[in-house]
Amino acid sequence: MTDWQQQRKDRNARLSAARPYADGKIFQPDDTVALLEAILRPGDRICLEGDNQKQADFLARALTQVDPARVHSLHIVQSGITLPEHLDLFESGIARKLDLCYSGPQGSAIARALAKGRIELGAIHTYPELFARYFIDLTPKVALIVARAADRDGNLYMGPNTEDTPTIAEATAFKDGIVVAQVNEIVTRLPRVDLPGDQVDFVVQSPEPFYMEPLFTRDPANITETQILMAMMAIKGIYAEYGVVRLNHGVGFPTAAIELLLPTYGERLGLKGKIATHFMLNPHPTLIPAIESGWVQHVHSPGAEIGMDAYVSARPDVFFVGQDGAQRSNRMFAHNAGHYALDLFIGSTLQIDLQGNSSTVRSDRIAGFGGAPNLGADARGRRHPSPAWLKAGEQSQRGTGATLARGRKLVVQVVETFGDKNSPAFVETLDSVAMAKQFDLDLPPVMIYGDDVTHIVTEEGIANLLLTRSHAEREQAIRAVAGYTDVGRARDRNATEALRARGIILRPQDLGINALDASRQLLAARSIADLVDWSGGLYKPPSKFRNW
Amino acid sequence: MTDWQQQRKDRNARLSAARPYADGKIFQPDDTVALLEAILRPGDRICLEGDNQKQADFLARALTQVDPARVHSLHIVQSGITLPEHLDLFESGIARKLDLCYSGPQGSAIARALAKGRIELGAIHTYPELFARYFIDLTPKVALIVARAADRDGNLYMGPNTEDTPTIAEATAFKDGIVVAQVNEIVTRLPRVDLPGDQVDFVVQSPEPFYMEPLFTRDPANITETQILMAMMAIKGIYAEYGVVRLNHGVGFPTAAIELLLPTYGERLGLKGKIATHFMLNPHPTLIPAIESGWVQHVHSPGAEIGMDAYVSARPDVFFVGQDGAQRSNRMFAHNAGHYALDLFIGSTLQIDLQGNSSTVRSDRIAGFGGAPNLGADARGRRHPSPAWLKAGEQSQRGTGATLARGRKLVVQVVETFGDKNSPAFVETLDSVAMAKQFDLDLPPVMIYGDDVTHIVTEEGIANLLLTRSHAEREQAIRAVAGYTDVGRARDRNATEALRARGIILRPQDLGINALDASRQLLAARSIADLVDWSGGLYKPPSKFRNW
Repeated sequence: MTDWQQQRKDRNARLSAARPYADGKIFQPDDTVALLEAILRPGDRICLEGDNQKQADFLARALTQVDPARVHSLHIVQSGITLPEHLDLFESGIARKLDLCYSGPQGSAIARALAKGRIELGAIHTYPELFARYFIDLTPKVALIVARAADRDGNLYMGPNTEDTPTIAEATAFKDGIVVAQVNEIVTRLPRVDLPGDQVDFVVQSPEPFYMEPLFTRDPANITETQILMAMMAIKGIYAEYGVVRLNHGVGFPTAAIELLLPTYGERLGLKGKIATHFMLNPHPTLIPAIESGWVQHVHSPGAEIGMDAYVSARPDVFFVGQDGAQRSNRMFAHNAGHYALDLFIGSTLQIDLQGNSSTVRSDRIAGFGGAPNLGADARGRRHPSPAWLKAGEQSQRGTGATLARGRKLVVQVVETFGDKNSPAFVETLDSVAMAKQFDLDLPPVMIYGDDVTHIVTEEGIANLLLTRSHAEREQAIRAVAGYTDVGRARDRNATEALRARGIILRPQDLGINALDASRQLLAARSIADLVDWSGGLYKPPSKFRNW
Repeated sequence: MTDWQQQRKDRNARLSAARPYADGKIFQPDDTVALLEAILRPGDRICLEGDNQKQADFLARALTQVDPARVHSLHIVQSGITLPEHLDLFESGIARKLDLCYSGPQGSAIARALAKGRIELGAIHTYPELFARYFIDLTPKVALIVARAADRDGNLYMGPNTEDTPTIAEATAFKDGIVVAQVNEIVTRLPRVDLPGDQVDFVVQSPEPFYMEPLFTRDPANITETQILMAMMAIKGIYAEYGVVRLNHGVGFPTAAIELLLPTYGERLGLKGKIATHFMLNPHPTLIPAIESGWVQHVHSPGAEIGMDAYVSARPDVFFVGQDGAQRSNRMFAHNAGHYALDLFIGSTLQIDLQGNSSTVRSDRIAGFGGAPNLGADARGRRHPSPAWLKAGEQSQRGTGATLARGRKLVVQVVETFGDKNSPAFVETLDSVAMAKQFDLDLPPVMIYGDDVTHIVTEEGIANLLLTRSHAEREQAIRAVAGYTDVGRARDRNATEALRARGIILRPQDLGINALDASRQLLAARSIADLVDWSGGLYKPPSKFRNW
């Protein structure tokens, strides 16, 4: 006779073991380690909520303190590896295997731990891909999540930082897993319920409010004229050319420049209301002028951004905001929207190879990809048309003999030919190829595959890869915008000029842009203080961005 | 001075107009039409919840009764157009524009209404695509949703039928829209909260329980030996060949046959535990024997299926089930999982053209696509490897000079060469091409594009399109399995034999399958009664499937 409730019995046994440490669902901070030891078993799959912004930092610290003789070899499945504690777990053997999406600040530490054999690396996912596996083959047994407040029934309030939590909790709670939440406060009545208490087993009020990563703030003071030139080309040569209305901006200075040029350069080109009106985007502070001047009408966000809460709350016609006044973010819904409802994704990368493949992964730094692979992949399941999507599709099919017309997502990489420390952005072979060999991975980690990239923008111009028809043409188009890098200098000048004649290479002058016009005067805000002004004082930048 | 809260003020004005008809959030059935007239404005975008299974039928009927002079030209944005009332709205002018995913039983009525100019058709989406647009450019102003029970705070319980509701409600409620729920009962304490009351403005107890579509029940008695032969080929020639572990089955008799052959034919091949262990799938009754015999270990579902509730509740080790004992389904999460976490999608279609493009849309019947475009699209954002995915990728890149290895989703179309009423499944041109011209659509509605299809299985054999290297080869491979249809008879026999020599065409005998072995004796269950037996009496088939 098969027992079909083994997972439930296992859950109940763990809950019983934890019961002495909890009063109903509530337990005290001092009992956290004991409670975790009661509910965890060696080899468990766990999600220790590390999102793009918010971090279950108190629970992460407690987890590093469990007895490795009792709790070890955990399989960590979470989107962000962001805190030092996340790595400490692997050093002590408490954790063994890792499946992740993004590891910004811990990228170098992960590479070191991998080299030492401390981490067994599963895969580097894009957000919705990891969320997908939560429901199929990487369902967490235990989820350690984070919220702003709870009531005694375990209902949770997250304010602007819903992020990954409903997805993690649903996968765990409905598969007989155990969900533990750290909260900043326990209250009698929540402003709203972002997660029903049915999905939460235990709650602890952490001694300090949870830690937040400020990821999406770019100080306009640091935007260069080169970046402004690239932004002008993107606006005139791509946004206007295709009529891009719905889009996402990867984080970075070139995209911040685009945001700050919409109300100035975009206005001068007569594009208001015609481009860039609907965004899937975290609340970038550099978007404030474009919102205030009526350019941007609608924004749905995967997460929040430090300092932007009051501004977002005051602009419910633009952002998704609850009746309690706080933003509602949701990484799963936003990235699904990013895949299926957008006409364009534009972002930067560390390296691009001769076919347009890009990666941010190197042997010494495994930064992860976050949302880029999902946002930067053509959505082949998409069926609804839009002018931008149809035009991109027409260009990609022109002359190929395709029998059925089909649209195409615009995927733009915007990079300076030389990046940090003068390292070239264009390379013969991605560093991730060597990294994959070193760590015996099945595939080199690639952020966006070249056959999904439609345009590359550098200070040298735009390469429209939609119109290339062979590997050789694609390579020459990439070399043509690669400037003085080795890749760029190896271009065939005749081939380059032929591509330019066909409109595959567009120099600034081909777009009617004078590089000398690329001035910081064009930026709608030139400092963080300007952004605060634009927001009418609603934007409260974190102290590290204040110089007043 | 810009007013940034216009949507909120508009919402509040509508809520005030509705207030006289409600006691708190609760209103009486007799006041439904008046309440709808109070909260709706001409041209509103509305979602009248019509999911794959559950239907807000009471609210749909009430909506047909509003005064078209007050409420007209609504833009309906919902996944399923399933009830006659959905069409009545267009006949009376209450609704004007339509964006949908699926319209099974109303497919012919939609085609007629379109021909008469009653419907302005937006697009036919796949599920997550429409959900994506809810957060970007098709956000509903009013959502009329459906649940099993509510409490007086508007918290909702959905039992096994969560389906689309959390997605619809989140998009509407957090963008200052209005959410109205019909429920079967109003209770003091819910078994669990599937949607927090913060996202619900009004609740009405409908006079009758909501209507459910039974979509996923296939009576094993109707499975033919041809379908069994195709199922044997799929299991041996694809599932075993690639080691397919994570998958989705489209609904249909050939896939029902596969489900019923796993514990018999699959067992004989020694494949238990090696293939088809993890599903994203509605609770197909024909999956019961494979679950009971330990083949299928894990199922996440977009929805429920009539009669399967008790069975699913008793198998929480396999399905996602809450602590209250009811299944938790979620169409958004399931289809995201279907896109990113599966190695194989297999489904049927009405028509396939010479390049493998398929569609279920004809000029006289617009059935929609449901999940197929999403499930049947290669997930180009996927980055995690699996043996099946790597092998498919290797085959598709073999000899192409691709510089970076990449995996590939297996997308299988399983069709008999002649379908209903002896209409050929293989055609020179899809009917949807003419339909698109007739209705002036931007693109012909295509369910799955040929370049995403990896295999076609018919009673004639398997065409492995991964190994074809040109349009001409692909066409000959398709003709080779198209049997005695016109498309099949126009094959070039030399080309076909060359493809067979290269393993692109696999006849049953090439797979070591004797067509004479394709007997109904191989089915683990040969009737609905057998399925009930397998389930130990837990499966309660709807009366139309009972003959005892």
